[in-house]
Amino acid sequence: MSILENIRTHEDLLRLDDTQLEALCAEIRAFLIESLSHTGGHLASNLGTVELSVAMDRVYDPWRDRIVFDVGHQCYTHKLLTGRMEGFARLRHMGGVSGFPKPGESEADAFIAGHASNSVSVALGMARARTRLGADYDVAALIGDGALTGGLAYEGLSNAGQSGEPMVVILNDNAMSIRRNVGGMARLLSRLRVRPAYFEFKRRYRGTVGKIKPLYNAIHAVKEQVKGAILPANVFDDLGFYYLGPVDGHDIKGLISALTWARDMRVPVLLHVITQKGRGYPMAELHPDRYHGVGPYDAATGELRRSGESFSAAVGQELELLAAADRRIAALTAAMADGTGLSGFERKYPERFFDTGIAEEHTVAMAAGMAKQGMLPVAALYSSFLQRSYDQLIHDVSLQRLHVVLGVDRAGLVGEDGETHHGLFDVAFLGTVPGMTLWCPASFAEARDMLRAALYDTDGPAALRYPRGGEGEYRSGGAAGLRAFGGAGDVSVVCYGTMINEALEAQRRLAEEGIAAQVLKLGRVLPLPEGLTDALAPRVVVAEEVCDAGCVGRRLLSEAALAGESPRARLLNLGDGIVGQGTTAELRALRGIDAAAIVRAAKELMSDEG
Amino acid sequence: MSILENIRTHEDLLRLDDTQLEALCAEIRAFLIESLSHTGGHLASNLGTVELSVAMDRVYDPWRDRIVFDVGHQCYTHKLLTGRMEGFARLRHMGGVSGFPKPGESEADAFIAGHASNSVSVALGMARARTRLGADYDVAALIGDGALTGGLAYEGLSNAGQSGEPMVVILNDNAMSIRRNVGGMARLLSRLRVRPAYFEFKRRYRGTVGKIKPLYNAIHAVKEQVKGAILPANVFDDLGFYYLGPVDGHDIKGLISALTWARDMRVPVLLHVITQKGRGYPMAELHPDRYHGVGPYDAATGELRRSGESFSAAVGQELELLAAADRRIAALTAAMADGTGLSGFERKYPERFFDTGIAEEHTVAMAAGMAKQGMLPVAALYSSFLQRSYDQLIHDVSLQRLHVVLGVDRAGLVGEDGETHHGLFDVAFLGTVPGMTLWCPASFAEARDMLRAALYDTDGPAALRYPRGGEGEYRSGGAAGLRAFGGAGDVSVVCYGTMINEALEAQRRLAEEGIAAQVLKLGRVLPLPEGLTDALAPRVVVAEEVCDAGCVGRRLLSEAALAGESPRARLLNLGDGIVGQGTTAELRALRGIDAAAIVRAAKELMSDEG
Repeated sequence: MSILENIRTHEDLLRLDDTQLEALCAEIRAFLIESLSHTGGHLASNLGTVELSVAMDRVYDPWRDRIVFDVGHQCYTHKLLTGRMEGFARLRHMGGVSGFPKPGESEADAFIAGHASNSVSVALGMARARTRLGADYDVAALIGDGALTGGLAYEGLSNAGQSGEPMVVILNDNAMSIRRNVGGMARLLSRLRVRPAYFEFKRRYRGTVGKIKPLYNAIHAVKEQVKGAILPANVFDDLGFYYLGPVDGHDIKGLISALTWARDMRVPVLLHVITQKGRGYPMAELHPDRYHGVGPYDAATGELRRSGESFSAAVGQELELLAAADRRIAALTAAMADGTGLSGFERKYPERFFDTGIAEEHTVAMAAGMAKQGMLPVAALYSSFLQRSYDQLIHDVSLQRLHVVLGVDRAGLVGEDGETHHGLFDVAFLGTVPGMTLWCPASFAEARDMLRAALYDTDGPAALRYPRGGEGEYRSGGAAGLRAFGGAGDVSVVCYGTMINEALEAQRRLAEEGIAAQVLKLGRVLPLPEGLTDALAPRVVVAEEVCDAGCVGRRLLSEAALAGESPRARLLNLGDGIVGQGTTAELRALRGIDAAAIVRAAKELMSDEG
Repeated sequence: MSILENIRTHEDLLRLDDTQLEALCAEIRAFLIESLSHTGGHLASNLGTVELSVAMDRVYDPWRDRIVFDVGHQCYTHKLLTGRMEGFARLRHMGGVSGFPKPGESEADAFIAGHASNSVSVALGMARARTRLGADYDVAALIGDGALTGGLAYEGLSNAGQSGEPMVVILNDNAMSIRRNVGGMARLLSRLRVRPAYFEFKRRYRGTVGKIKPLYNAIHAVKEQVKGAILPANVFDDLGFYYLGPVDGHDIKGLISALTWARDMRVPVLLHVITQKGRGYPMAELHPDRYHGVGPYDAATGELRRSGESFSAAVGQELELLAAADRRIAALTAAMADGTGLSGFERKYPERFFDTGIAEEHTVAMAAGMAKQGMLPVAALYSSFLQRSYDQLIHDVSLQRLHVVLGVDRAGLVGEDGETHHGLFDVAFLGTVPGMTLWCPASFAEARDMLRAALYDTDGPAALRYPRGGEGEYRSGGAAGLRAFGGAGDVSVVCYGTMINEALEAQRRLAEEGIAAQVLKLGRVLPLPEGLTDALAPRVVVAEEVCDAGCVGRRLLSEAALAGESPRARLLNLGDGIVGQGTTAELRALRGIDAAAIVRAAKELMSDEG
């Protein structure tokens, strides 16, 4: 690690010659393979972008220029090159380096990332600000072929191409997004990939006259003609970009040359780079999906720790069973077939399985069309990404009371991915969707039963909200809207989902201190079960893994007030909804929504009246 | 109107010969020009699509097949052809025909419409349901070139092209969306428009062998080659569509022929139709923007009634003033420069004015990039369309506390456009955006003062919420978070925005009946002004022009409950947020949020305790 350890600034990187740059890339790969074996992380995508990241941080000054990452889980090399090597010992853990770009962590991170397809829009905004304010820096966006399936990327490209703003969109094309790419853009890219002749031509051209700047403009018009003859117009040209590529994403010299040229063209340029996911680690090259996001593994053998059962799998398996008996059922996902437990469904019912790519808006609008014509579409989307579909849920689904069922996966705290990935707003925004029914299973058994309830006992839009990972101590089934644990007591503890485990634990601890708490577990939070306000004790603790605005606690208190009741209450939730990285248990404790916090709140309520 | 009056069914239309079809189109134009002069409506776009609509309803059976309109304000001819002529006397008025497709109004309307760019997704969902369920009907989407700037359309096209599902996307290209088209797609379309040779070739081909079905497949491969030679690949081909066009959108015979052919190809086809907005009405041909959506006018002269001052204009004018002194200010809009009062800004500061097309997600993400680099972006978007940007508001703006200012135009009830266009969810969803400050001006003077407050006295995301149209009796200025009218009394009436006029009227009426009501007017609803709960009387009426979930009333009651207070309360709002068409005054009365309703609620609260 002798080279890597000495890279602290942009100038350090500029000092390296070609041989040293290649050695640096090898060091980075070795470091990532070893370091991530302890912490877990996004292995395959970072191994695929080592050379590209070194080239970017060399051609651009990351402290002065603005490099906007899309999704951002491919930022590890960039972090290593900008002084954050030590933080990798606790990568994605509480207090460690984030797995995503974070301006709060380093000035070298230009913008937050996490949700796909926004980078071109953000970079265009930066380029326009640069030009309007007369500043002097360069702007680039790094976007993967997967993120290119999102409509937001198209909106950004269309507007950026027309703007004429000097900026470079670097397309990191690994010929598969997280799993495999879908849709028309994938077709186009595969067509472009087989045309390497074009960029070779350009490099030769550049070698002779391209370096002499004044000549550039004079020759530009002629070059455009030649280009037209060699490469048919593609969508990027149509959108106003100067398309450049494809270039080999593992040739560090070629990358630096191409990127420098793209930067200096002073127009919107799309640089098409072909990379190989998992590059340099045979197991990850062979199974890039499996090594996309991993937990700790054996660095020597690549052996992964088997992850346990999950809510996603329970929902996916139940959906397979139901689909056997009901041909109206279809499963939809936006590039997350594995993550949402639908791979089995896809194998069994490929005709009724639809992976739309990273296109949450389209997924929900298409589901609305299917529902209108008599199908039973189930769209499994991550809670945080479902935010993208808010308008379609209201406009396309609910205004016609269409029976679209959502699997709201990764709801609540997701742990290591942190603030951009927690699903803390869904209860609030789904609560504003007219006619929405929202089930919150607390166990795999409930997930199965509530999926059936959502499909067959509900009209209009319906959703099932479940967390990342597995169930806790609570294992009961059923689809009860409201279940009480313990008799009416001094305090009601209201909760839903896997928070039941915290509530029951709190109930035990309170009992030890002589306080009788009744746990009211909501199976359904939209609409709230009837009789809930009547069931409340005079003191109420509501504990939820969501943001404060629009939470169940606030709805409950306003309902009680309208009914003329006025329980004394404590609302335990995640405040404004911005929560960093850490395990779910750590974050629940830190933010005061765990069993200990419930106990504290209940005791405060008891003593307030002392 | 002898032909039009006799069209009630699809069969009636099938019976007409070419001459009668042309006469029918002339009758429809005359009817629209005359009828809309009394009711107002979307004149120019409907005049432009008369022949296209007749062709669609002839080639497709609208009761059996599914024609999905995009945006949908171009549906008037379709409504005339499907038995709704009488309803046009009250078009867009309460109880009359809607200005948008409504399945509840007629089975011939396949899907709701209003928000742009969803039609391809919805149609694909329908086509997939058709195929999976073994049904036998055709599916088409009608989308304008303006809606094609939206990323959702791209997601839909990309997925549909790959699906292979038989369906036709009819591109209604009038070379301008509502105002003028922007972005790369516009460039592409203008390139395609000048290549009429292609479709002429196809028509000749079809004339000879195309009609003999068995020959079609055999010749298909050859034709593809020819096509490649004549027309360079375009984005629609890239996305997997069979591109067909352009065709003359005012040649009824040619349209029927092309559409029939497209329908029978049994693959995804994009049919490119060129139409002229305002066709057949000289004033509207000349000024298609001005006649896009109109109030009543003089049919003979085309003279429009001048609309009065508006909140949009007040905001736009103030922004021009501020921009003179602050070069960091930029104005952004998504295809609504006129509607949001920014045309003056555009003329004065074209360098700092950005019309992104129908691309609300991109607009907000780009604004975030601008704000990150030191500009002061103000994005003026209609409330209902801002729903599209929900994820960008959280992810791109608020996680970094970026100072992006939103002009939330058309907030609350919008009147004649009805359920798809009312802005009733913004208070709720903006309330979940971390760190959001939301001002609600009640007068033009407040709009100006609060815009300054949002720009210069606020950190992080900030927004100004104002209605369509003008101010009422209340004309005061300032940017007070809370203003009280009248001393502490029997009842508090809490309100914000132009609802102040209803509240003050209610206060007067209550005073006549001996009830002292204090009006508490909120200038800022996010965060709620400090001291608000303390200022409440024991009886509270909260009157709002928003949906119930996440409304200020519910937030206020939960705040009061947490503070140990328990006022008796009535919440007057718009329930689930689904409200039909009518004037704002009619709808306020119908849904019980006007002065009379406030009076009733206050009196109920007084007598409940009798």
